[in-house]
Amino acid sequence: MAYFDAASSAPLHPVARQALLASLDEGWADPARLYREGRRARMLLDAARETAAEAVGCRADELVFTSSGTRAVHSGIAGVLAGRRRIGSHLIVSAVEHSSVLHAADAHEAGGGSVTQVAVGRVGSVDVGTYAEALRPDTALACLQSANHEVGTEQPVAEVAAVCREAGVPLLVDAAQSLGWGRVEGDWSVLTGSAHKWGGPSGVGLLVVRKGVRFAAQGPGDERESGRAAGFENIPAIVAAAASLRAVRAEATQEAVRLRELTERIRARVPRLVPDVEVVGDPERRLPGIVTFSCLYVDGETLLHELDRAGFSVSSGSSCTSSTLTPSHVLKAMGVLSEGNVRVSLPFGTPEEDVERFLRVLAPAVAGMREQLGVPTPEKVVRDEDVLVVDSLGKRCPIPVIELAKVIGDVPVGGLVRVLSDDEAARLDIPAWCEMRGQEYVGEDPAEQGTAYLVRRIS
Amino acid sequence: MAYFDAASSAPLHPVARQALLASLDEGWADPARLYREGRRARMLLDAARETAAEAVGCRADELVFTSSGTRAVHSGIAGVLAGRRRIGSHLIVSAVEHSSVLHAADAHEAGGGSVTQVAVGRVGSVDVGTYAEALRPDTALACLQSANHEVGTEQPVAEVAAVCREAGVPLLVDAAQSLGWGRVEGDWSVLTGSAHKWGGPSGVGLLVVRKGVRFAAQGPGDERESGRAAGFENIPAIVAAAASLRAVRAEATQEAVRLRELTERIRARVPRLVPDVEVVGDPERRLPGIVTFSCLYVDGETLLHELDRAGFSVSSGSSCTSSTLTPSHVLKAMGVLSEGNVRVSLPFGTPEEDVERFLRVLAPAVAGMREQLGVPTPEKVVRDEDVLVVDSLGKRCPIPVIELAKVIGDVPVGGLVRVLSDDEAARLDIPAWCEMRGQEYVGEDPAEQGTAYLVRRIS
Repeated sequence: MAYFDAASSAPLHPVARQALLASLDEGWADPARLYREGRRARMLLDAARETAAEAVGCRADELVFTSSGTRAVHSGIAGVLAGRRRIGSHLIVSAVEHSSVLHAADAHEAGGGSVTQVAVGRVGSVDVGTYAEALRPDTALACLQSANHEVGTEQPVAEVAAVCREAGVPLLVDAAQSLGWGRVEGDWSVLTGSAHKWGGPSGVGLLVVRKGVRFAAQGPGDERESGRAAGFENIPAIVAAAASLRAVRAEATQEAVRLRELTERIRARVPRLVPDVEVVGDPERRLPGIVTFSCLYVDGETLLHELDRAGFSVSSGSSCTSSTLTPSHVLKAMGVLSEGNVRVSLPFGTPEEDVERFLRVLAPAVAGMREQLGVPTPEKVVRDEDVLVVDSLGKRCPIPVIELAKVIGDVPVGGLVRVLSDDEAARLDIPAWCEMRGQEYVGEDPAEQGTAYLVRRIS
Repeated sequence: MAYFDAASSAPLHPVARQALLASLDEGWADPARLYREGRRARMLLDAARETAAEAVGCRADELVFTSSGTRAVHSGIAGVLAGRRRIGSHLIVSAVEHSSVLHAADAHEAGGGSVTQVAVGRVGSVDVGTYAEALRPDTALACLQSANHEVGTEQPVAEVAAVCREAGVPLLVDAAQSLGWGRVEGDWSVLTGSAHKWGGPSGVGLLVVRKGVRFAAQGPGDERESGRAAGFENIPAIVAAAASLRAVRAEATQEAVRLRELTERIRARVPRLVPDVEVVGDPERRLPGIVTFSCLYVDGETLLHELDRAGFSVSSGSSCTSSTLTPSHVLKAMGVLSEGNVRVSLPFGTPEEDVERFLRVLAPAVAGMREQLGVPTPEKVVRDEDVLVVDSLGKRCPIPVIELAKVIGDVPVGGLVRVLSDDEAARLDIPAWCEMRGQEYVGEDPAEQGTAYLVRRIS
């Protein structure tokens, strides 16, 4: 059994477990109370705040604990937008932010605000110049993740923070994926984090708001956590979160080297072991533990099941997985293949043998699935002058791409294939296939049913 | 050492501790994932939901877990108000709700909604007829706690639910204080609870929305918990919350009898042991473990410190305690004395000896404090015809009442005492003193500085 989905949630770090157990007996009382149990709870809370602030690189009074990373993001975005309402209601996010940021942006837009999504390049990072162009006089807040949760690509946070600072716009950094590895460099204004991503317990997020940032907490409040996180403090979990953050940081430098070597091995060997694979994300500027690739002609959900049966827990940004019907917005924004997508995110301490075993089972699993999918004969192929029409209506990804691949050799170089599909994933995967295969993606037209995707044979 | 503040937060129940430990290793993964760790987390979450729903008396799909009781209240109120926006924007709350309800009401009012606070009688309960009168055609939601957190008085929830049902208005019941003791009876529509009040861990609340209630979750959402509680689920804590709720329920009937006898002992004996005490709250319709009383001529915070030094952790609704400068809104709404207020709330399993020891230390503590406060001579007493003026400006509660008590014998029966005070607590405590002492409280006038409170000597 190997758990390779640390980017979703890391197993509890032993230090987190110890700290949680120790503080269950000391930290259950109300820290606002004056009696001994309350004072003890307050001391634990204050000490945890100092520890977390030291790890983040901020003042203790700039940091509050929230009930989750998602809550930290929602409260942080809403608080700055409200605090800077007089400046304007324009919000900037990158196209590859975590869904909690994008949901907050949606809510802002639904409430009458305006949102700019900054596009990313094919490796998943924003360009600093492009980001800077999005800044406007009425920009209230800009958001940028420290590193991407699906492909591991690190964003140029310090550079973007500098251009934001120059424009007088606060930058909120969602540091959920990177905080265990180190501080976020640069002159950011607001930072959020999530304890269960670094091996802390569930139920704890961090919201850091630098002194001087205009902030007006939204929603009904109370006096806890500087009025920024209503509700009784979960002190045992907070203590465990802070203790484990310090513990993983102490191991981070060494472990980063080790995990980077292991993910580099996957990056290098998967394309050699498995034909028709695209490894995505920045090969250099990336988190140590995450590697993501997509396998042509493979259904993502089936591949997850196969790998689960072989003892590997991985995640996927393909459509049809985890009760979602559209492919990951991250892969979409990067314009890469989403078919048969696999994200491997190694937890601290992953043994080398587990990675080697994964590399051994992956190739036969993919080959078996491709064999099972067989070589489906396109059902209705209508030659219309020099356009070959493939009707994949009603067929789910990866069938449309497989059918395209089957017939591309049937048209002369310069000829066109028109793929009819009503699966949303085709919009992403047909262009990505063209890119991988060196064919020309001409564009799409609305068809009577679904959409027609036009591909020109080049080679 | 005796912890008598279970109404703030109960120590962790042994079953909660066991369940938490057991599920730390099983429940850390993302329950939305398809691999084994995710499926296992999902199973734990589903089982906990079934257990909690059984305890509440609702369907499992009506119950979601939130990150705190406060969050459940905020989300519940906002969701119903938004869901029934077309009916109107009128919200009803009782005057003695928990601050989380009142804060949500404030936020609603600040957003342009209207709020009616239903007054309570001297024992702290609403009158069903008075509550019914508050219902209007544009009432979107009515709120009523199951039992009061400061004085233990049970509210006529079933009766109020019936009149709300007849008017077609959903009733939200904040059951934080009573859920460990039993189900909330009656035809309520929405219910909230908080695990750390029944001995579960911090970080878990319950929000139950009956099928058929129009509900529109507010704020940025995600797919977790039916879209009603965004953020990664805290499964170990949820499992512990559900397991401990079942465990305390199994002990509740027997423990209720025992604790009721202990609090009855305090109710009966405190007035005999300590002169000038008012025991507040309903003597019959009340929670088993809570008893509250106020001691004339005593400063609440000092009394808490004295009791803490004697080994008792209790709470107070007096002003000047726990960084608040106004007396508890509950005592205020009840019109009872807030001076020297003490709330004793016994946790499950409180030994009889602890209560006996408390009764032994209370009287000398209060007597010592009264002695220390001494018999201050009113500084400026100006006889103005038959009105005696006491200038207590700049003096904090309980000094104004002490000075009033000193001079009341100096005016003839029918004569008036005019107390000048700029302490907000005097507005509550001078009328309460009159009620206790059988003197007539005439009313208040704005004075050049502070407020003048007029008292007529009757006896």
